[in-house]
Parts: sequence; C-alpha cells; structure tokens
Amino acid sequence: MGLLQNFRNNINQRNQGSASVAKERLQILVAHDRMGRDQPSYLKHLEREILEVIRKYVPVDEEAISVSYEQEGQQEILELNIILPDHGSRL
Amino acid sequence: MGLLQNFRNNINQRNQGSASVAKERLQILVAHDRMGRDQPSYLKHLEREILEVIRKYVPVDEEAISVSYEQEGQQEILELNIILPDHGSRL
Repeated sequence: MGLLQNFRNNINQRNQGSASVAKERLQILVAHDRMGRDQPSYLKHLEREILEVIRKYVPVDEEAISVSYEQEGQQEILELNIILPDHGSRL
Repeated sequence: MGLLQNFRNNINQRNQGSASVAKERLQILVAHDRMGRDQPSYLKHLEREILEVIRKYVPVDEEAISVSYEQEGQQEILELNIILPDHGSRL
C-alpha cells in the first residue's frame, strides 16, 4: 500500500532526525478529492471537530498544534501535527 | 514538506489510475508515535469518532469505508478511505 508506506517512511525519517527530543506525536492528514463540485469546503470544520475528538483522549495545547491547509484544483489537503504533552494520555 | 508531498503524489497517482470512474473521496491518515508508553491505544476509538464527525457533513455508507490499522513498535497508523456518494454533501 503505497500511501501508507510513504507515510510511514516519512515519519520514520522525522523521528530519526529528532531522536534526541523524543516526543509523543499525533499526525493527521485529510485529503478530499471533490471531483469538480462547486460547493463550500467543510475541511476547516472537520479540522476543528477532529481536534475536539482528540481532546477527549489526550490534552492538547493550542500552541502544540500546527495546521497546514492546501488546495490544488479539486483536491484539498489538511494536515495536523500535534505534539502531545508528557504523560498526557487519559486512557 | 515531505509528508504532504508524498501524500499528494500518491493520491494523484491513484486518481490517474481511476480517472474513468471518478468519485469523490476522502482519505484520512492518523499516525501516533507513542514513545514507549505502555498504555492502551485510543486510535480505534478515534476511528469511530472521526467517522461520526464526517457523517455530519456528508452521508457515508458503511460499505464505502475501508479501514486499515497497522502497528509497528511504538507507532500506530490508522488509514480511512471513504468513497463519497454522488451529490452527497450537505453543506
């Protein structure tokens, strides 16, 4: 599965680069192929709601979230990178 | 941004391969680097809740969802691929 492999390879590379400051991290990518629809995007709403869901499980500081949003033609990609606090998991 | 580029390249490749059956799609990847925590995973819970969030915006058939979950060492990756119904967006 190419997408998954690319994703894992990239994360592994990142981890190797920052091994000395190992942090628990959560990365979320959402890609929407809209196929020519001329309708408003809901990805920005998804972003907020996905963060709310994650906060049910782990505390997330606002400053620990980096968000990237890109649109290219009919494709939108939302990327969330979250550094989780130490010992933050509630489960 | 390597991760984003890999993601986009891969999606573009997929799109080219299936251009004759163009469908609106949503792809979601969640990667969790747990950094050695010996705690239960909450990714399976996230999966269910993220799908609930998405259903607020677009109708999603159960059979249109494919889920992949992989765990390798301290890293978990959840992948959701959703084929959206034609004219399904509510916004």
